[in-house]
Amino acid sequence: MHVVLAGGVGAARYLLGAIEAFPAEDVTAVVNVGDDVVMHGLQISPDLDTCTYTLAGAIDPDRGWGLVDESWQAMASLASYGGDNWFGLGDRDLGTHMYRTDRLSQGASLTEVTAEITKRWGLRCTLLPVSEDPIRTMVTLADGHEVGFQEYFVRLAHDVALKSVRFDGADVARPTSAAIGAIREADALVIAPSNPIVSIGPILEVDGVRDAVAGRRSRNVAISPIVGGRALKGPADRMLNELGEESSVVGVARRYRDLVATLIIDEVDCDLAEAVEREGVRAVVTPTIMSQPGVSKALARTAADIATAGLS
Amino acid sequence: MHVVLAGGVGAARYLLGAIEAFPAEDVTAVVNVGDDVVMHGLQISPDLDTCTYTLAGAIDPDRGWGLVDESWQAMASLASYGGDNWFGLGDRDLGTHMYRTDRLSQGASLTEVTAEITKRWGLRCTLLPVSEDPIRTMVTLADGHEVGFQEYFVRLAHDVALKSVRFDGADVARPTSAAIGAIREADALVIAPSNPIVSIGPILEVDGVRDAVAGRRSRNVAISPIVGGRALKGPADRMLNELGEESSVVGVARRYRDLVATLIIDEVDCDLAEAVEREGVRAVVTPTIMSQPGVSKALARTAADIATAGLS
Repeated sequence: MHVVLAGGVGAARYLLGAIEAFPAEDVTAVVNVGDDVVMHGLQISPDLDTCTYTLAGAIDPDRGWGLVDESWQAMASLASYGGDNWFGLGDRDLGTHMYRTDRLSQGASLTEVTAEITKRWGLRCTLLPVSEDPIRTMVTLADGHEVGFQEYFVRLAHDVALKSVRFDGADVARPTSAAIGAIREADALVIAPSNPIVSIGPILEVDGVRDAVAGRRSRNVAISPIVGGRALKGPADRMLNELGEESSVVGVARRYRDLVATLIIDEVDCDLAEAVEREGVRAVVTPTIMSQPGVSKALARTAADIATAGLS
Repeated sequence: MHVVLAGGVGAARYLLGAIEAFPAEDVTAVVNVGDDVVMHGLQISPDLDTCTYTLAGAIDPDRGWGLVDESWQAMASLASYGGDNWFGLGDRDLGTHMYRTDRLSQGASLTEVTAEITKRWGLRCTLLPVSEDPIRTMVTLADGHEVGFQEYFVRLAHDVALKSVRFDGADVARPTSAAIGAIREADALVIAPSNPIVSIGPILEVDGVRDAVAGRRSRNVAISPIVGGRALKGPADRMLNELGEESSVVGVARRYRDLVATLIIDEVDCDLAEAVEREGVRAVVTPTIMSQPGVSKALARTAADIATAGLS
């Protein structure tokens, strides 16, 4: 079992490699729900959908979110009323949220609904929301104003300084038995190259998850989302700086040192391998930029090999 | 002030004539909300939208509901998951419901939201939901099973016998001050040719509305939705029969005799004029089939003339 702690885009790309490297049935992602939001009455789970659409080959490759060949009639209509249309919801994507909203209101669990949605897209791997309980990532901006994650990330285009981040509901959220079971029983547990603060952070805050991950540290591997000091996508680099951490593979190593024995870093950061190891984390240097063909599959194999070695 | 108690299609067509016959600013509809429903998390007000889209010239003329030149990507997507897609929601129509859902969740009243929506469509007449309180038309089928109105009307295509109808919430619903004010201050009050049971019925059940209408009976006019014993559209004829009433202009006269002094009936029913008058309601015979050009405008003028005469 190859188990991945997953956020959105970076994790989805890693998972694409994992299902190439291994039988898809052996790949499970435990996915962040801190980005989830109710918008226009619809239950939206951005990270679960980004993983699903990417693994189905249906993600819009240019935007990195939503469906390819999407139409935008509903949003245009909403905009014509002066409605809030900063959170882009394509017409076919809306069908996903309508389905999720219906099934949840009928009493289905998010785990069940996610299984139904991934089945419709023909996925053979498993996507598990980390928890059925609401967790809402909240961002306090430099001006002291607190906003929901999507307001920070999408409406403000994460183009504002932040002061702190908290995960509303995480203190009382419980992991699903499937998610905690997958973490415990994984042969390899991989922290995907997702934003460590707002994608991986909420997963770890759910009751018992951090301990379950830390308890098997020797068989865990993280892939640094920071390459050459920068996030490949999104604001992870600025967020780390703004929270007083270091936007580098060393900063990532500090964040994860109690959780993983190994950090995979990109070749451009090879001169920081020693600094990473001074944090008590083994550094493995390999190409990590997954827009190059074959990289994500090779990464998944490398991560699995490291975890198996850690086991011995 | 020309004030119309309104359901969906029939009322919308009458209103089109009324805004031709009079300055649109002088026309107000008090609209049924018993058909309203929350579906997929979205707040849907079918009668308000049918009136709005019709008056805007944007209704689909073939279906009689929804927007013309509509696309159906969201519904197709929902269907691909096996979701409930029996209630047709076009993509642009969805934008209306998303906007309404947002504004209501922000604390706006349905009256305010409706004004915003009709403004966006350029309407100069006024549409008023009869109440801000939830009223839900519930239908008990012949087999004893109770379903919501949309389930009866749309999912079952009203192709099942019913035993009774009730208006959940109507006993505690209060009319808006705008709606009750319009009813009281109208020069002419017209009951549109809408389904008397499930379109006009819920309006009259709201606290104080029936009394306010009855209190000005001499200046009120109803237009029969039954022509030649049949409803022009929808199940009003079968519903009247199934509830033990008479599917004829006489049956309509019995239903409305405490509310209006005059019933306008179609020429095909001229031989029933005397029977109508035996119910204590004056019968006025004139063309009422509004699919013919000019009929709705002439009907509106006739109704206003009758009401003014009633006043003298």
